[in-house]
Amino acid sequence: MNFDEIIDRRGTHSSKWDMMEKLYGLSPEDGLPMWVADMDFRPPHSVQQALEAYAAEGVFGYFGDERDYLASVCWWSETRHGWTIDPEWIFSTHGLVNGTGLCVEAFTAPGDGVVLFTPVYHAFARTIKAAGRRVVECPLIQVDGRYEMDFDAYDTLLDGSEKMVILCSPHNPGGRVWSKAELQQVADFARRHDLILVSDEIHCDITMPGHTHVPMALADEGISERLVMMTAATKTFNLAGIHTGNVIIPDPALRKRFGQLMAGLGISPNAFAQRLVPAAYAPEGAAWVDALCDYLDGNRHLFDSGINAIPGLRSMRLEGTYLAWVDFSGTGMSTQEVQRRILDEAKIAVNFGSAFGAGGETFQRFNIGTQRERVVEAVERMQRAFADLQ
Amino acid sequence: MNFDEIIDRRGTHSSKWDMMEKLYGLSPEDGLPMWVADMDFRPPHSVQQALEAYAAEGVFGYFGDERDYLASVCWWSETRHGWTIDPEWIFSTHGLVNGTGLCVEAFTAPGDGVVLFTPVYHAFARTIKAAGRRVVECPLIQVDGRYEMDFDAYDTLLDGSEKMVILCSPHNPGGRVWSKAELQQVADFARRHDLILVSDEIHCDITMPGHTHVPMALADEGISERLVMMTAATKTFNLAGIHTGNVIIPDPALRKRFGQLMAGLGISPNAFAQRLVPAAYAPEGAAWVDALCDYLDGNRHLFDSGINAIPGLRSMRLEGTYLAWVDFSGTGMSTQEVQRRILDEAKIAVNFGSAFGAGGETFQRFNIGTQRERVVEAVERMQRAFADLQ
Repeated sequence: MNFDEIIDRRGTHSSKWDMMEKLYGLSPEDGLPMWVADMDFRPPHSVQQALEAYAAEGVFGYFGDERDYLASVCWWSETRHGWTIDPEWIFSTHGLVNGTGLCVEAFTAPGDGVVLFTPVYHAFARTIKAAGRRVVECPLIQVDGRYEMDFDAYDTLLDGSEKMVILCSPHNPGGRVWSKAELQQVADFARRHDLILVSDEIHCDITMPGHTHVPMALADEGISERLVMMTAATKTFNLAGIHTGNVIIPDPALRKRFGQLMAGLGISPNAFAQRLVPAAYAPEGAAWVDALCDYLDGNRHLFDSGINAIPGLRSMRLEGTYLAWVDFSGTGMSTQEVQRRILDEAKIAVNFGSAFGAGGETFQRFNIGTQRERVVEAVERMQRAFADLQ
Repeated sequence: MNFDEIIDRRGTHSSKWDMMEKLYGLSPEDGLPMWVADMDFRPPHSVQQALEAYAAEGVFGYFGDERDYLASVCWWSETRHGWTIDPEWIFSTHGLVNGTGLCVEAFTAPGDGVVLFTPVYHAFARTIKAAGRRVVECPLIQVDGRYEMDFDAYDTLLDGSEKMVILCSPHNPGGRVWSKAELQQVADFARRHDLILVSDEIHCDITMPGHTHVPMALADEGISERLVMMTAATKTFNLAGIHTGNVIIPDPALRKRFGQLMAGLGISPNAFAQRLVPAAYAPEGAAWVDALCDYLDGNRHLFDSGINAIPGLRSMRLEGTYLAWVDFSGTGMSTQEVQRRILDEAKIAVNFGSAFGAGGETFQRFNIGTQRERVVEAVERMQRAFADLQ
C-alpha cells in the first residue's frame, strides 16, 4: 500500500491520461490529469492476485456461479456499513451509469421528470435526457461553505410530473457525507412527491476521518418500498475498467420490474468483474480502503490549504470522495479566463463545473486521487497560474 | 495451438463445468459437460499476452480510446469476410444477448412480433418474451438432412404485426452456413414484410472446410437500410467471459435510434474486452482460428461417425459452429427416456432440444468444442447408453 509510488499510466489506454490531449489539448509530457474519477493507484494486492490467478487458468469462457460475488457484496455491506442485505436483492449491472439508465427505464416513462440535487454527477442528466425524460434541477444551497438541501424551495419547484429522484450519497461534487437527519428529509421528500428514490452510493467507502456514511436503507427503514440502492467496488478499489455495479432493491415489486428489464435487455455480469470483486470486498480490501482514506485525507488537507491560500479561490471541505470542488467566483474572473489559466498555464485537466448542472458554473472539479507529489505539483501550478491575485 | 491438451476447468467458475452439478445433477468427478457454447481451449497466445501485459500495468481505471478496438473489428471483417465497415457503424455491447435485447428495445414495441427461424438459439426467445414482445416461430424444414427455409409457408404465418426478424447465421443449432441465395431470400422476406433484419453472425468465423460464410450485408446490399449486423470475438476466440459484442449498423437512421438507446441505458465497453479483442482480431488470431476450424472438423467427423453408428440417432452434418445437433426421433423413445440415458447413463450434460423452439423437440445439442479425447469419450458413453439399439 505505497500510495506515494509514482505510476506512469500513459500509453495504457487510461482514459484519464491518454484522452487528455484529445479532450483538453494538454500534452502527456507535461499535462496533469485531474478530471475523470479514477485514481492513479493500484488496487489491493488481493485483487492483483485474483487477476493473475485467473490469467494463469487461461480459459475465459462463460462465468458460472455468482454466489461468491454476491456473498462478498453482502459481507462488505454488513461489515463496513452495518446494512444487512439479502443476495436476492442484488442485480449486477455494467457499472452505475448503466444502473442509473436501467432505473430510469424501469421506473419512469418518456416525458417524466427526474429530480437531481445540483450540481451533481454529470452522467445523471446525460442519461436522463438521452432516455427522453426531463431533468428537474433542485439546486443545493451553501451553508457555512458546504452544500445543504432546501426542501421548502424544492417543494415549490415540482409540478407532479416527477417520478424519480436520484440522490448522490456521498455527494459528487462537493463531497458531502449526508447526515442521517438529512437523509430522512430526502426520504420524506420522496414520499411527499411519490417518487422512486435511487440512492447512488458509489462513493460510500471513501469518507474522511470524522465522517460516517449512512446507507439510505438504514436512515429511513420505511423508505424501502420505493428505494433503489446502488453501490460498486469500482470507485472504492479503482476498478472502473471492470464495468460492474450493484443495484440493490429490497422491495419485491420494484425488483420484479427491474429484473424483467434486465432479462429483456440481456444484461449479465462479465467474468473479470465477478472474479476480482470478491478479492476486493474482503479483509485485505478493507485494510487497503482504511489506508486509502487516510492518504486521501492528507491529499485533501494539502490541496485545500494550497488552493485556499490563493485569494478568491475556495476549495469545498471534502467529507467524502476524492473530488475537490473549487469555487472561483471570488476571483471576479470570467469562467473562460479561469479555465484558460487552468488549462493553458497550469496545464491541469479538470472537470468543468458547468457540466454538473445549476450551481456549478463558477466551480471546477479537481480529482486528488493521485500521488501526493502530483497534488503538490498541482497546487504549485495553480499558485503560479493565479499568482497575480496574491 | 495444442488443442489436444487436456485442461481442467473445474473450480475456475466455469459455467460449463462448475454449474453442471447444480443444473444437471452430474458430478464434476465423472460428468462430461457438452452444453453451454464455450470451448475448453485457451485463446490465442496473443490474447494471453495482452491480458498479462494489462495485469502487469496494474491499474484498472477507466478505459480510453477505442480506436484500436474498432480498427481491429474493421480489419477482421475486411480480411476474413471481405466486408468493409466504417468504425462509426460499430456499437460495442455487453455481448450479443445484450445486443439482441437492445435491438428488440430500439426497433420494436411491446406486443410486436419478432420472427425466429426455429429451432434456434434459445436466448432469442427468452429475451423477446422478457421484453413483452411475441415470438413468431417460422420452422425450418429438413431437406437431405439439413435445415432449409420455406418462405412460402412463412408468408402465410405472418399477420402484419411483426416488426423484426432475427437470423442466426451460421445457424445454431444445426450448423447451416447459409448460401448467398438463401440469404437473399431472407432479405426479400424482410422487405416483403417490412421487418428490421437482425443478422446474428457470432459463429461466422467457425466454418468447416468447403463452407464459406457470407455476411448478410454482402449477400444483398440493398438490405442495409433495414439491417443490423452482429458479430463478436467471444465465440471465435473462446472469450465469452469478457462479455462484449459488436452491433454494426450501416444505416444512419437506425444507428441514431440504437445510439440513443445505448446512451439512455449508459452502456459502454469494459476495459478487459477492449484490451483483449485487438489481440485476437490480428494475424496471430487468424492463424489460430484456421487451426481451430481444422481441429473442430476432426471432432465433427469423429463425433458424427460414432453417433450415426447408433441406430436411430442422427447427427446433423455441421457446416459451421461446434454445436452438434442430434436427432433421437429414430429411436422411438420418449424425450424423457432419451434424456435419462444421456444424463444418468452417459453422464453427459447437453442442451435439451425443446429449448430451441418448434422443431427442436426430438433433438439434443452436444458441444464438441473440446479436446478430441473428450469427444471420443462422449461417443463411447453414448454408444454404451444406447447399446440395446445396436
